[in-house]
Amino acid sequence: MTLRLGLLGGGQLGRMLALSARNLGFEVIVLEPNPEAPARAAARQLQKAYDDNDALRELAACDFVTFEFENIPEAAAKALNQPGQFAPPVSALLVSQDRWVEKNTFQKLGIPTPAFLKVDSLEDAQDAFKRLGPLVLKTRKFGYDGKGQAVVRSAQNLSEAYMQLNDAPAIAEKLVPFEREISVITCRGRDGQTVVYPVTENIHKKGVLHKSLAPAPGLSPVLVAEAQDMAQRLVDHFNYVGVLALELFQVDGTLKANEFAPRVHNSGHWTMEGAVTSQFENHVRAVCDLPLGCADLRAPSVMLNLIGEIPPRTQLLSITDAHLHDYAKPARPGRKVGHLTCLGATLKEASERAALAETAIKGENSVSTE
Amino acid sequence: MTLRLGLLGGGQLGRMLALSARNLGFEVIVLEPNPEAPARAAARQLQKAYDDNDALRELAACDFVTFEFENIPEAAAKALNQPGQFAPPVSALLVSQDRWVEKNTFQKLGIPTPAFLKVDSLEDAQDAFKRLGPLVLKTRKFGYDGKGQAVVRSAQNLSEAYMQLNDAPAIAEKLVPFEREISVITCRGRDGQTVVYPVTENIHKKGVLHKSLAPAPGLSPVLVAEAQDMAQRLVDHFNYVGVLALELFQVDGTLKANEFAPRVHNSGHWTMEGAVTSQFENHVRAVCDLPLGCADLRAPSVMLNLIGEIPPRTQLLSITDAHLHDYAKPARPGRKVGHLTCLGATLKEASERAALAETAIKGENSVSTE
Repeated sequence: MTLRLGLLGGGQLGRMLALSARNLGFEVIVLEPNPEAPARAAARQLQKAYDDNDALRELAACDFVTFEFENIPEAAAKALNQPGQFAPPVSALLVSQDRWVEKNTFQKLGIPTPAFLKVDSLEDAQDAFKRLGPLVLKTRKFGYDGKGQAVVRSAQNLSEAYMQLNDAPAIAEKLVPFEREISVITCRGRDGQTVVYPVTENIHKKGVLHKSLAPAPGLSPVLVAEAQDMAQRLVDHFNYVGVLALELFQVDGTLKANEFAPRVHNSGHWTMEGAVTSQFENHVRAVCDLPLGCADLRAPSVMLNLIGEIPPRTQLLSITDAHLHDYAKPARPGRKVGHLTCLGATLKEASERAALAETAIKGENSVSTE
Repeated sequence: MTLRLGLLGGGQLGRMLALSARNLGFEVIVLEPNPEAPARAAARQLQKAYDDNDALRELAACDFVTFEFENIPEAAAKALNQPGQFAPPVSALLVSQDRWVEKNTFQKLGIPTPAFLKVDSLEDAQDAFKRLGPLVLKTRKFGYDGKGQAVVRSAQNLSEAYMQLNDAPAIAEKLVPFEREISVITCRGRDGQTVVYPVTENIHKKGVLHKSLAPAPGLSPVLVAEAQDMAQRLVDHFNYVGVLALELFQVDGTLKANEFAPRVHNSGHWTMEGAVTSQFENHVRAVCDLPLGCADLRAPSVMLNLIGEIPPRTQLLSITDAHLHDYAKPARPGRKVGHLTCLGATLKEASERAALAETAIKGENSVSTE
């Protein structure tokens, strides 16, 4: 009687998807080997490997099935990919899993990217440096949060950088002097209805998202429309269902695509309070064939990732209109353990509130990591 | 390492408390005999009676303990009532469990009520009718949602109404021709910090809350301040910790207290989206000794209870800024199975959205109960 949503992956994204699905009345079943899976908070956990046949069968018996990460084992994708049940589509998954294919898809869809070349050998890398100049080497697969990447600014560093890739198939991407990174999150329903969230500015530290500002301050209406249109072209191309996040560089007043994620995204966490409907609820609605919710801004928002451990709650919760999401993960340096979203009447006010939180975070980090 | 919140009672209030506590990073353990407990969605359930000694011991081992309903068995209150851990205070619980004591407490605190008299016999009831005229007989204990109540408009109905009480200790309350019912929800922290939500107008059908409007339209600032002051006096009196809801009648431009609930309250469900911090999160923050969140209005809100069964989701979720909370309870006529909160730029807009939802609800109810 109660509809069941199956979820591959039980990290914090799975947790927030599960919490949203619960509000809509769904039972949630999550396949996740980690016994301390954050998604356990609101889901029944199948504590098995992602490619465990019995667990996959149980997951496939749910009314709808989705996932929180894109590196899904082939066995899982095969077992779960039932039309009308599994979303986002495997086609989008496969493209997002390979930077070479991904970049070519962007180009095919008329979505500009930094210049890029395929790198399968040191010779390819040397050739790429000659043609592109300073560049970033990126493995084609399994990169996240800046991992599997190396910036090469001079020819003499090239072979060392290439060695770090361990001969993994890679691409070389021209190093673009971007002003900032932005992202646009869109959600498409099974009927093709699409909503798009305000564009977000993302500030990274050590390759990991540190802060998101929504809406991206000072972004011209032309560029907002361009970013949203690129996302629209992507989801239409894949006949996509669910949330998709597109990361872009702003370079000299133009936008260049970096990558997309076929899932809910860290840069959309602010939508939980800052938008009329959160990315998590809209993803669940889309996957479960429900009408999408309005993606308009509720209030300007600044989201801070909490890395390593949760700073003193008392300090964070003393801030007006600050909303804590603690993923209940064991503390560990560099680990995303929660986030805090500060809202304000203006982005300036939201930023001031976030600045208060950063004081607490800094205090904490100096204790934990030094 | 992770803090644990124990919860007595696993209905929808427990569910929404548990979901809020999860966002703040708490583990949640709920004591609830019902195997289909809505709170299971986000809590580990001890499926035992409320007065089961082993289960109570396990609950008492949590860092903080609270409850979702006021008719707590004495054994449970005794087992759980540790200072600094259990909240709201047992003193408030005991007063709220007995209408006679409750009304006398209101009077002692200078909070006006309709005239009332103690009724322990048919003779008392007859005497009360002579002195008060038309009245409501209410059992002193265990009444909720209009149960254990009988309106007596003429003397000849008196004995029949009294018989319905089965000789339970009762009070007679003068029938006041109130214009409307309103409620005020407040939350007090362990340090005495108090926040108060905008006053809500509540519309009942067959004794059950049907709709809440926040802020209560057209309520004069003087009456708003009066209502909020009454709530403040109550929580200060009890040295209260947690959310308290005070129900009031508006009569001839004055306010008269009906009853209070020492817990989160149906008339505060709109705060999940309509206020900066929800009543559920603030209750958890108070019980768990965290700073309280701002209780200001985020946007005018209309909350509709979903009774009997969830109307077609597609219809409800097509409404802009409508937020569904499905408690995942089996459908049954008269049962609260969910609620929907509609927000708007104005209360008029929120009401128009709620009116769209009521169409869906009516359609559904006519199928299910006729």
